[in-house]
Amino acid sequence: MSKPILILGAGPSGLAAAHALASVGQRAVLVEKEGRLGGAPILSGYAKLVPSGEWARDAIGGMVARVENNPLVAINKGCTVKEFRGEPGAFQATLSNGEMCQVGAAILCSGFTHFDSVNKPEWGFGTFPDVVTTAQVEQMISSGKGVRCPSDGRKPQRVAILLCVGSRDRQIGREWCSKICCTVSCNLAIEIREEIPDCHVYIYYMDIRTFGLYETRYYWRSQEEFKVKYIKARIAEVTSDGQRLIIKGEDTLVKRPITIPFDMVVHAIGMDPNVDNRSIASVFGVALEPHGHIGKGNAYGTFGETSRPGVFVAGAATGPETIDDSIGQARAAAMAAFAFVQQPAAPAAKVA
Amino acid sequence: MSKPILILGAGPSGLAAAHALASVGQRAVLVEKEGRLGGAPILSGYAKLVPSGEWARDAIGGMVARVENNPLVAINKGCTVKEFRGEPGAFQATLSNGEMCQVGAAILCSGFTHFDSVNKPEWGFGTFPDVVTTAQVEQMISSGKGVRCPSDGRKPQRVAILLCVGSRDRQIGREWCSKICCTVSCNLAIEIREEIPDCHVYIYYMDIRTFGLYETRYYWRSQEEFKVKYIKARIAEVTSDGQRLIIKGEDTLVKRPITIPFDMVVHAIGMDPNVDNRSIASVFGVALEPHGHIGKGNAYGTFGETSRPGVFVAGAATGPETIDDSIGQARAAAMAAFAFVQQPAAPAAKVA
Repeated sequence: MSKPILILGAGPSGLAAAHALASVGQRAVLVEKEGRLGGAPILSGYAKLVPSGEWARDAIGGMVARVENNPLVAINKGCTVKEFRGEPGAFQATLSNGEMCQVGAAILCSGFTHFDSVNKPEWGFGTFPDVVTTAQVEQMISSGKGVRCPSDGRKPQRVAILLCVGSRDRQIGREWCSKICCTVSCNLAIEIREEIPDCHVYIYYMDIRTFGLYETRYYWRSQEEFKVKYIKARIAEVTSDGQRLIIKGEDTLVKRPITIPFDMVVHAIGMDPNVDNRSIASVFGVALEPHGHIGKGNAYGTFGETSRPGVFVAGAATGPETIDDSIGQARAAAMAAFAFVQQPAAPAAKVA
Repeated sequence: MSKPILILGAGPSGLAAAHALASVGQRAVLVEKEGRLGGAPILSGYAKLVPSGEWARDAIGGMVARVENNPLVAINKGCTVKEFRGEPGAFQATLSNGEMCQVGAAILCSGFTHFDSVNKPEWGFGTFPDVVTTAQVEQMISSGKGVRCPSDGRKPQRVAILLCVGSRDRQIGREWCSKICCTVSCNLAIEIREEIPDCHVYIYYMDIRTFGLYETRYYWRSQEEFKVKYIKARIAEVTSDGQRLIIKGEDTLVKRPITIPFDMVVHAIGMDPNVDNRSIASVFGVALEPHGHIGKGNAYGTFGETSRPGVFVAGAATGPETIDDSIGQARAAAMAAFAFVQQPAAPAAKVA
């Protein structure tokens, strides 16, 4: 029987990898730093997921239950990996709970960290209570409480969603695009309109990146069926007139300054590299790419290789990623790791 | 020993699935309708791939060689599947070359069909010889002949790349976004500027969708390092003044009509559903989604499920897809099919 495979992180990627391995009879050791499995969709209380429309608690909750009930997966919650030594096919991991594991390979499914909007102070988060994040609106919806202004609990009549908060923004060191915020924001706008039909929802954007089949399902549907309005704009600041929030900026298409009142302003926050990436890279001996994500080899090889043979990576640990693609990558990396523990002979990957 | 798994199509997805299966000792039967393996990157002669920068003939060629030399993969070229009968775990496939195969499962990796630009006649393809497609420019580069105007063989001094040709265009029944053409066009613009440093390259766009880490590597790099110019515009038509091509339209940002001369106009062609999808759906008994791609179940299950248990799908067969994500999905679907042939007990997936 081959040695177990260590999986770091129990979000959608880690859960998918663990399930994939167990489905072919391969043991896995799952290590999750939080006290609960599920990653961002569960811990941050996401509402309905893109593109399935299923509630996160059902979709990802189902993945959690399937792994928690699987005898081939050893689960360590509230736990980190302190040391990872040895050779490909014969690694020894020391966990923070004192356990030592002999493992044949590892898959890093350590995900991302939500951008903290206080790092974009001119857009009002932390100053005005009714400036919130997409994650907070997801929680309002998934909790059943509904979308309400935090300041006084009223139903907003006018909501603005600002895209690219912590993305495509060199001033604050986030040059990358976070890939899925556009589509998530279209989806959220639809959910707000479903709950509060007389609420006007505006999306302020640089480019709308509802790529592939999301174009029809989210961008067009949100406009035509749900009357969400899209405005290409440069936002200068979010202030208040004492009664309502005021968005100031420039409408890029009509080339005119805009000063528009809203009840609620939503930051579509991006995906930062996981705050633990330096420590993870150090413990596992893998290289980071220039932005601080975990570097991965080209896809043409065995998939999901890091710079260290026998250590694989998948999902948002490698850069902003959708849930579906994270799951696909994790299952692909699980396949690679499974083949590896049967015959560990891969050379080191060239990583980006 | 479990029955082999049928793989339909030998592009990046099919090659990745076959390699993944063979890497865990699972036999595969690969069926490719063309006389050569490699799919679009090889058959259409792509140049340097996104995001690796490797030549397609090396990157995908290497995947071909690895599969062709693998004793666990039975290859059928110039061949289609005529019938696919039986039960999950015990299917019988009849191939057009007369072979009958007993297989445990199937993975549809049948990819896409390039949009044919003659279906967008007002943009000049088929009328003016110097209006070409991204696929043709890739061939010019990969063949070593260089980027030249087909009419007279001269090096172009001014090149326009028009995005969304056969994408995001309801007038011609292509509502979807083709996901990767923006990034491919940025990459192609860089390659043109590398070959002809004094050539001016313009990209005409609706939205620039260089999502995720492509933002830095392609969008910013093409502008800053290679001086590629981006113009948000609605293109009305491509005509000629007898000497040069003329692009007419409206610059959306400055709200002014534009009439600009070019030596070469490049259509960034989109990804249509594979022209064979109706026949494939009929033979394999799987449902198509509304646009005509092969329908797939949600990612939270075993991955890549179609409406028929035991038949999986991956890559651009399901909608516009990148090469890397196609490969990841194919390896994930291979993992699912491999688990399936060991224990075929999955219920039918709900497909989109």
